Amino acid sequence: MIPHDSIVALATPSGAGAIAVIRISGKDAIAIGNSVFRSIKNKDLTKQKTHTLHLGHIMDNTKTLDQVLVSIFKGPNSYTGENTIEISCHGSTYIQQQIIQLLLRKGCRMADPGEFTLRAFLNGKLDLSQAEAVADLISSDNEASHQIAMQQMRGGFSNEIAKLREELLNFASLIELELDFAEEDVEFADRTQFHELLNRIEFVLKRLIDSFAVGNVIKNGIPVAIVGEPNVGKSTLLNALLNEERAIVSEIAGTTRDTIEDELVIGGIGFRFIDTAGIRETEDIVESIGIRKTFEKIEQAQVVVYLLDSSSQMTDGSFKQIQIELEKIKNQFPLKPLVIIGNKADKLTETEIQNIKSEIPTILLISAKEKLGVDELKNQLLSFVNTGALRNNETIVTNTRHYDSLLKALDEIQKVKFGLETNLSSDLMALDIKEALYHFGMITGQVTNDELLGNIFANFCIGK
Amino acid sequence: MIPHDSIVALATPSGAGAIAVIRISGKDAIAIGNSVFRSIKNKDLTKQKTHTLHLGHIMDNTKTLDQVLVSIFKGPNSYTGENTIEISCHGSTYIQQQIIQLLLRKGCRMADPGEFTLRAFLNGKLDLSQAEAVADLISSDNEASHQIAMQQMRGGFSNEIAKLREELLNFASLIELELDFAEEDVEFADRTQFHELLNRIEFVLKRLIDSFAVGNVIKNGIPVAIVGEPNVGKSTLLNALLNEERAIVSEIAGTTRDTIEDELVIGGIGFRFIDTAGIRETEDIVESIGIRKTFEKIEQAQVVVYLLDSSSQMTDGSFKQIQIELEKIKNQFPLKPLVIIGNKADKLTETEIQNIKSEIPTILLISAKEKLGVDELKNQLLSFVNTGALRNNETIVTNTRHYDSLLKALDEIQKVKFGLETNLSSDLMALDIKEALYHFGMITGQVTNDELLGNIFANFCIGK
Repeated sequence: MIPHDSIVALATPSGAGAIAVIRISGKDAIAIGNSVFRSIKNKDLTKQKTHTLHLGHIMDNTKTLDQVLVSIFKGPNSYTGENTIEISCHGSTYIQQQIIQLLLRKGCRMADPGEFTLRAFLNGKLDLSQAEAVADLISSDNEASHQIAMQQMRGGFSNEIAKLREELLNFASLIELELDFAEEDVEFADRTQFHELLNRIEFVLKRLIDSFAVGNVIKNGIPVAIVGEPNVGKSTLLNALLNEERAIVSEIAGTTRDTIEDELVIGGIGFRFIDTAGIRETEDIVESIGIRKTFEKIEQAQVVVYLLDSSSQMTDGSFKQIQIELEKIKNQFPLKPLVIIGNKADKLTETEIQNIKSEIPTILLISAKEKLGVDELKNQLLSFVNTGALRNNETIVTNTRHYDSLLKALDEIQKVKFGLETNLSSDLMALDIKEALYHFGMITGQVTNDELLGNIFANFCIGK
Repeated sequence: MIPHDSIVALATPSGAGAIAVIRISGKDAIAIGNSVFRSIKNKDLTKQKTHTLHLGHIMDNTKTLDQVLVSIFKGPNSYTGENTIEISCHGSTYIQQQIIQLLLRKGCRMADPGEFTLRAFLNGKLDLSQAEAVADLISSDNEASHQIAMQQMRGGFSNEIAKLREELLNFASLIELELDFAEEDVEFADRTQFHELLNRIEFVLKRLIDSFAVGNVIKNGIPVAIVGEPNVGKSTLLNALLNEERAIVSEIAGTTRDTIEDELVIGGIGFRFIDTAGIRETEDIVESIGIRKTFEKIEQAQVVVYLLDSSSQMTDGSFKQIQIELEKIKNQFPLKPLVIIGNKADKLTETEIQNIKSEIPTILLISAKEKLGVDELKNQLLSFVNTGALRNNETIVTNTRHYDSLLKALDEIQKVKFGLETNLSSDLMALDIKEALYHFGMITGQVTNDELLGNIFANFCIGK
């Protein structure tokens, strides 16, 4: 049931700014706004057109709280689909509080987190995946996550799902019809067409499910472990990548004992760099804990950067040691991309460069300090992300809830397909189709329940 | 000269919220907005009415940055008096930055602090004291400062000054006229009426100048020094007044060695409580520094609260010591209101209460811990502020610049008056009148210069 009370909340970030916006939505929103508003031109807000702005004062009886601009949106032509007003007031916390308190006394109720968007969903202004995209959009902090949220908010994802659901629904009703005429053994649903549809749905679902890998990376960033001997320049490399001084750069070997994480956006993708203490064999207990932590961090990382000091680790013994360590990493983590970097290459002669390249052919020589080769490293890191879908503006799944529903839908579709191939009776197939339709509906919100809605909107900010 | 370029800034506080508002002002504001806006209904923003709202997308070429609502204000019917648009976008920092960067590429310039309000002043939408009130309004954090800023913003102060200036100007022109007919020795300006006007101006100026004492208090709060022996409950009293645990409350005598300041709003007036280390004579060097600091703090305070532990400082010797200390404070600061408080009164018998009251008749017995008598103390503190002007909604001067101009204007007015009484020649009197008019004009901005404007608006936030 759609509630009819009027909710109020501050829609702009708290704190002082030039202006703040207070939003009211509900059947009586405009009337309540009008009851505390004294127009400069003696206008009655309830008689104004939608999408108009009005200058005046917010009055607490005879006391003037602020000079404000009021925006009027008449339902259904508003964000929530209900009557809505937005009060643009001066950005003093005191004024914001006074106005909100006044509105509460006039019959508004404080909005719950995400309640404006919940109402937009309940009033059919957005489907559920679009509503979820609103929160993603607000929290997007780079190009890729912004692009995906934007596409999802504009209905890209829902349209794709809704179309498949529609087609499946058509077949479902034909199958249901067969059940009504069960004794006559007729087939209304063309089995060949149906099989073709199921294949198409399966294909789309698999693509969407696969997209979650990159979607997840885009939403949460790619963890990259930087591994290497103490004093090879891990912190300097991190700083060169970050272009600022975050980690402690020191000449003392083994300075970086704790792992440090830092984020960098390369080509619109977030990378989380995890600085580790390296894996040098040592007697030092603190260092040993560091080595254990290093392996734990590699475990969590999706890419490993192995960093060595190309200007000092140059003896035959050193090369041996490096090759042992690289083997160790490759054996333990055979599927993780490994980038081998020789730092401090600015100190090398041409002969030394040739020597290193013949010993470790895949090495990338850079100088973090002089910022040489850093861009090449960035490009290499970016190559591990399949951004094809992003470039082609395809639908990418970023939401675990959607991923989960897609997996379940795929499972049901494959059951239906198997049923079709093994001539399963229509009534059993109809059950599996219903299940698949249910999971599609869960994504767009055509199927829903209070608990699900509660969980989704609890993560929103207040005022949205 | 009024600039014609278009300025842009985020008008809402930075950080994540449901929405953010980006403001553009300037001759081309609407055209620039239109160049990056794709209306849902294919509207051309430049052809829309003023004070209307439009839904659409901000486009960076083919890339959609956000779904937004655009408000249109056509000059002179806008805050700045120029064409203005406000873009209400989703509250992601990434989106805000992208939109602002796009607008900068399209020909906008980042606004300086207060530049929107500066333009409002230059375009005659506000006078200077009203513009200054905008900043005061945004920073107002209690009822009294809010009320004064609101009154000033609505022109209360300017009107009073402007009216006097107008009348003075009339007489000035009559006096100037006399100068043109100097050889004929005529008097166009009625001397009796002029004297009466000067008296009236003097009276108003004095009232405004006097109001600065309370205005300053309202703007900056009243500093109150809390003085007393260690362990008498200063921190507990502070906490009782503040209703929260700020200062360290401890059973160890002499815990509060450093002075702590905390603010509390009582009856709309801000009080700054300064917790001091007391003035007990001591051998302890750290404590001695504390005593010196205590006297320094009393110097800065407007009210002194002398706190004693009524449950332990009860012997004849104690009373003697207390009376010596009170004398010391009274002698050193004869004009500062002194409130004597006996804390921990919940531990006293009726006989003890009578005994204390006979020794120190003006004592106020309270229990900070049990919150007894705290309201009485609050009322007593409030009685030191003459809030009559505030209650009567009179103009109160809070701005040092205005105070300064009023003092100078008064000085000139008194010179004119003296000239009139001593039959000074019209040409000399005309000079003094001009000076007075100049100082009046400095308040409202009828007289101004770039340096003055620079100083005033530099204190504004960006986006206002």
